[in-house]
Amino acid sequence: MSLPFEKRRKALIEAISKAKLDALAVTSPANWYYLTGFTGDAGVVIVTPDGTTLISDGRFTTQARQETNSVRYVEQKGSLAESAGKLLRRKTVGRVGFDPSRVSVAQLSLLRKATGGRTEWIPAPGLVEGLRIRKEPSELAWMRQAAILAGDVLTGAVKLLKPGVTENEIAAEIEYQMRRRGASGPAFETIVAFGKRSALPHARPTAKRLRKNELVVLDLGAILAHYCSDITRTVYVGRAPARIKKWYMAVLEAQTAAIAAVRAGVSCGDVDAAARQVLAGYKLDRHFTHSTGHGLGLEVHEDPRLARAQKARLEPGYVVTIEPGVYMAGVGGIRIEDDVAVLPGNTEVLTRISRDLIEL
Amino acid sequence: MSLPFEKRRKALIEAISKAKLDALAVTSPANWYYLTGFTGDAGVVIVTPDGTTLISDGRFTTQARQETNSVRYVEQKGSLAESAGKLLRRKTVGRVGFDPSRVSVAQLSLLRKATGGRTEWIPAPGLVEGLRIRKEPSELAWMRQAAILAGDVLTGAVKLLKPGVTENEIAAEIEYQMRRRGASGPAFETIVAFGKRSALPHARPTAKRLRKNELVVLDLGAILAHYCSDITRTVYVGRAPARIKKWYMAVLEAQTAAIAAVRAGVSCGDVDAAARQVLAGYKLDRHFTHSTGHGLGLEVHEDPRLARAQKARLEPGYVVTIEPGVYMAGVGGIRIEDDVAVLPGNTEVLTRISRDLIEL
Repeated sequence: MSLPFEKRRKALIEAISKAKLDALAVTSPANWYYLTGFTGDAGVVIVTPDGTTLISDGRFTTQARQETNSVRYVEQKGSLAESAGKLLRRKTVGRVGFDPSRVSVAQLSLLRKATGGRTEWIPAPGLVEGLRIRKEPSELAWMRQAAILAGDVLTGAVKLLKPGVTENEIAAEIEYQMRRRGASGPAFETIVAFGKRSALPHARPTAKRLRKNELVVLDLGAILAHYCSDITRTVYVGRAPARIKKWYMAVLEAQTAAIAAVRAGVSCGDVDAAARQVLAGYKLDRHFTHSTGHGLGLEVHEDPRLARAQKARLEPGYVVTIEPGVYMAGVGGIRIEDDVAVLPGNTEVLTRISRDLIEL
Repeated sequence: MSLPFEKRRKALIEAISKAKLDALAVTSPANWYYLTGFTGDAGVVIVTPDGTTLISDGRFTTQARQETNSVRYVEQKGSLAESAGKLLRRKTVGRVGFDPSRVSVAQLSLLRKATGGRTEWIPAPGLVEGLRIRKEPSELAWMRQAAILAGDVLTGAVKLLKPGVTENEIAAEIEYQMRRRGASGPAFETIVAFGKRSALPHARPTAKRLRKNELVVLDLGAILAHYCSDITRTVYVGRAPARIKKWYMAVLEAQTAAIAAVRAGVSCGDVDAAARQVLAGYKLDRHFTHSTGHGLGLEVHEDPRLARAQKARLEPGYVVTIEPGVYMAGVGGIRIEDDVAVLPGNTEVLTRISRDLIEL
């Protein structure tokens, strides 16, 4: 159990040394789970070449001891910053790195005060994320299961789309079925949007009832063994009119082009452009109001970003979503989303269900 | 619909002026929902005496226009910080407040760069939270409904506690029933902990199966019309042995004492002490490893904190949880939690179900 965690900490210590730091303060639950296995949601993990210390409060003491291995545990006395400060002062650590996007202005000020003048706090963004972005085979195995699970749940939800049902009811059923299949919960707030509301890319489910001849966007993801999936399908309740079909086929073509563009060595901006160019060919690009996708893993939004002009290049082990859409205010929206793993010399679409327009 | 939002913005503008600021940058979804009604989860709201501007990205443009009233909307071009910077430069706003606990070190650095030298970013913690802490009658009405809903769901879940059922299954059923009753989802990850696992105050549900003669802790909350509830009950599957009953009665007495201590003018530390003193009388205080409670509202953890030595005093309109517990590693835990509103000269326990030990 503890081997992957130790291996990851070893890789992190190399990154810490390379960044000329004496220690890294890890302040996000996803990052400390990745490094130690601790699933609590309060605390801080201090990684140094001499070893790793987890500080958390009394609510998590028993759990921390059960979940971690070869990690020192300190139960917080006073504030978290005070406990971290005490530890770092005792170790006389000079240069402590932290991720500036994972530490609030207030936290940093408390940490600085607690460690005193001999410790310098150095912004060191993305050291753990730089490891997490390349999924290990065991992580890919869980992500595949999470993706298949999400597809199965989506397929089941489509069967419940009858006129009169509400967005809230479908969302409830989706999250229930995820858990029944072993997920610990949804990876994000499930999107169930009927009719005009499907033109809102991030609609929250409401009491709106489904009617004939409406579009339905279902966007859902499950967390399985800590790993997230993310899938979207668009359904038409009735026989889709010609313009809806045209839009759907354009989005499907854009998504197919972007999935085809995914491979090791390609820039994220080029994957985004592949989708955008197809939609431009149909004069639909101005209705595609978001980016093409994002990395996926322990969190539902991770590096890399598949957006305009992003220069980062895909590498084996990356897992990304590909999710172009078009949104017509007052009419409805269409989005198709799958999860794609970059493999050495290959790719794998982790989500397995059909991408054809579903007409009910 | 928009009246409460306008009234709140007016109150905030007074607080902004009092803090000698020209504007406040509101960076948390709960805070901008409170001020504008916008339910999107990306953006920033700039409040000035001249008016309020919401900046968000293309995914939220239609939604923002539908949800807000008398709020200017700007669709983000480039990064959020760049768009905010452009707006603030144009208005030549000198002193912009921000909440240091709601802004990351990285965000502040981008914002500073984007606004340039003439704008000073001033830490101004808790200005919106200072308004949110006093619930309006319409907010209390929703919180009462959310609390009753959570109690009903808990009562239903207890009926499903049969040997062989898993923690995951009960959690799935709880969240499903919340949604069936109109909640938009759980207010936090539902806790269902069987047997020894109930000694972990923040246990996550697992595939563990229920056996006879185990303790069960159910800790759940629902979000109804944006407002959170939070309730915990402890069940014994079988006839509880004498020591379990003794512990249960001690926790119940501690909770009763703390609920009785809640009233306008009392310090939060005194409410915490009321629970802790009862447990000390039974030599159980060292097994009570967390604080007595927390504020509740649009977020599940709000001000005030009911913890040791907290000097803040309760006022009418505050809603707090009262949730002492005792945890015996290797045996199990007991926690009882209710939500209490402070009224002028009175209090109201919003959660309504029995607090007696349930033996199945």
